[in-house]
Amino acid sequence: MAHIQLPAGLPGIRGPMAFRPETARPLSQLAEILLRGESTLTRAERELIAARVSAGNDCDYCRTSHGAIAAQYLGGDEAVVASVCSDPDAAPVSAKLKALLAIAGKVREGGKSVRAEDVERARAEGATDLEIHDAVLIAAAFCMFNRYVDGLATWTPEDPESYRERAASIVRDGYVNLARRLAEVD
Amino acid sequence: MAHIQLPAGLPGIRGPMAFRPETARPLSQLAEILLRGESTLTRAERELIAARVSAGNDCDYCRTSHGAIAAQYLGGDEAVVASVCSDPDAAPVSAKLKALLAIAGKVREGGKSVRAEDVERARAEGATDLEIHDAVLIAAAFCMFNRYVDGLATWTPEDPESYRERAASIVRDGYVNLARRLAEVD
Repeated sequence: MAHIQLPAGLPGIRGPMAFRPETARPLSQLAEILLRGESTLTRAERELIAARVSAGNDCDYCRTSHGAIAAQYLGGDEAVVASVCSDPDAAPVSAKLKALLAIAGKVREGGKSVRAEDVERARAEGATDLEIHDAVLIAAAFCMFNRYVDGLATWTPEDPESYRERAASIVRDGYVNLARRLAEVD
Repeated sequence: MAHIQLPAGLPGIRGPMAFRPETARPLSQLAEILLRGESTLTRAERELIAARVSAGNDCDYCRTSHGAIAAQYLGGDEAVVASVCSDPDAAPVSAKLKALLAIAGKVREGGKSVRAEDVERARAEGATDLEIHDAVLIAAAFCMFNRYVDGLATWTPEDPESYRERAASIVRDGYVNLARRLAEVD
């Protein structure tokens, strides 16, 4: 049971988003820009960073949700997602993404854990300043989203198929439209 | 030196906000709603939660900035701020705020650290579901802001007077106006 009275039947962050549409709006806009907006990182790469940080923070709802979205961008390849979540350095992804995942992992521990050599490694693999910025902010944002979801003890469904269905709707309609729809729930 | 090339002369979060105005917009809207929007918590109380979480995350820029803003709402009382940042349970603040600060401290450690009894304590001291929600989200949001500021190794000024000056401008104009002004810098 959630720590506060949330609209019924909504999993994870959807409950508090429907409870407080005023804050859901900027939260969804932030996700939309970082994860789906114009970028030289693919949407799959950005969702993999989100899923990996959520795995590190032990947030099952966010890991499974963003893992399912990443998998859909990758043509259904759930094995890559599992691999990035458990051991990014051994995952079948580009050296640049590995370096950005390493920075994201440091950000997750704490901002001061990021060292100049982590950033140099990413730059040596071709990452731009904007890509490094966005990897840091995606990781930081998921340190927020994960705590929001678990700090209120929201409902984490166990059925993997429901994550695939919600992922398909995010891939199709995006985060801002989800927030609009949820604002009508409460 | 910051990890990426940021607009010169801007302390803390202001550098990355000017570097990336697209994400600065929802970030500043989130801060505006949570810290200055309509609420049964005072602006001082909300800034104290922000300062305390930032102290826990060892983010000097955010702790000093939001501590200076809280102090201005409290008529210049910097001693209360210092006390909340170092030992909230012993600070001269209401029992309700102490309970919300305790929840915020748990959120900072990780979402799953928040226990039903932490929430019951806040409720017993008169906190509403909306106040508990906002305390959780303020704490989660500062786990993001702190990592954004330190993960990019932004500039932390040492001069306390400059924090008081920036605080006065936030108290007067708010966070969204700051983001608008910074969008013109880069």
